[in-house]
Amino acid sequence: MEFSSKLLENAVQEMSQLPGIGKRTALRLVLHLLKQPKERTEMLTDALMKLKSEVNFCRSCHNISDTELCEICANPKRDESLVCVVEDIRDVMAIENTSQYQGLYHVLGGKISPMEGVGPQDLNIASLIQKVRKGTVKELIFALSSTMEGDTTNFYIYRQLEGLEVVTSAIARGISVGDELEFADEVTLGRSIVNRVPFESSIKAN
Amino acid sequence: MEFSSKLLENAVQEMSQLPGIGKRTALRLVLHLLKQPKERTEMLTDALMKLKSEVNFCRSCHNISDTELCEICANPKRDESLVCVVEDIRDVMAIENTSQYQGLYHVLGGKISPMEGVGPQDLNIASLIQKVRKGTVKELIFALSSTMEGDTTNFYIYRQLEGLEVVTSAIARGISVGDELEFADEVTLGRSIVNRVPFESSIKAN
Repeated sequence: MEFSSKLLENAVQEMSQLPGIGKRTALRLVLHLLKQPKERTEMLTDALMKLKSEVNFCRSCHNISDTELCEICANPKRDESLVCVVEDIRDVMAIENTSQYQGLYHVLGGKISPMEGVGPQDLNIASLIQKVRKGTVKELIFALSSTMEGDTTNFYIYRQLEGLEVVTSAIARGISVGDELEFADEVTLGRSIVNRVPFESSIKAN
Repeated sequence: MEFSSKLLENAVQEMSQLPGIGKRTALRLVLHLLKQPKERTEMLTDALMKLKSEVNFCRSCHNISDTELCEICANPKRDESLVCVVEDIRDVMAIENTSQYQGLYHVLGGKISPMEGVGPQDLNIASLIQKVRKGTVKELIFALSSTMEGDTTNFYIYRQLEGLEVVTSAIARGISVGDELEFADEVTLGRSIVNRVPFESSIKAN
């Protein structure tokens, strides 16, 4: 792609560093900003810089928070004996959206992935074990994605918990509500039969 | 979508103002920036602000340019008797990529669109007519998109040219090179038959 301006080329280059944004899309976004009043660009860049320089992570669960302790951890109505282990703050948002969970979270910040050079020490695992050691946590719910990296991470944490008194569980895998059985993949369908639940609780969850 | 941080919400809100970027994508992009070193965000915001505050448009063709006269207009090898009228600087880039055109451009900056409140006075039409009035331009090539707005804009300019000595042409519409006839839409196929070209020139263009 040949640019008529270095400034434009530079802006497109930086924009296309974002995941899923190719050169063409970046050009479209940059030209859109160019057509808008200057305040638009200022508001965008200010918001990004402000987030980056002032962002704070909850000292207990590592979720993004404007306060030292996030709203969920600070809420006395939440059940602190229940901790759901997730990869990312997006997972917290997704589970919170369901309004079905009243426990706390622990955000690992990623999964163990030797391929990408992410080891256990790069994740918030030590603080999780410490939390469990304190004895208030009765159950850990693993809610990582069911990939090889997710399973590895789950297993690593599971091993670290040896000797500690805590129940571990994993979120249920199965057919999505509303999905047709015939279109489900075999692994998911298989798991959903093996891990079937009492009929009464299947009604309650809806 | 519920956010655990105002700073995060604000950044996602601003990012999702960009065309084609929804809230979920915006969140993904913002969280990506959060994981990267601070320099990444700085480089992106600097590039955007710099472009916005220092951007310059060629005084002759209105293409984005770091110099007063863009590289194309300033190039003595380009044929200044030929001017291709386009909507956007992306069209200039697309035509330049073909290496098939040696004339100059005129970037209108949009199309006449009463629905979106864009009138002829909002576009670089007056400067185009002035350019033609000077007498150096022998042919104007209309290369706007073939939509109602594009046709309206072409026709508006065509009317303004009345009494001036200039040939007007439009880029050829037809079947894309490599496409099967059976899958072409009727209007395009119809035009490509009516506006057929001598066989020799169809070979030359490849």
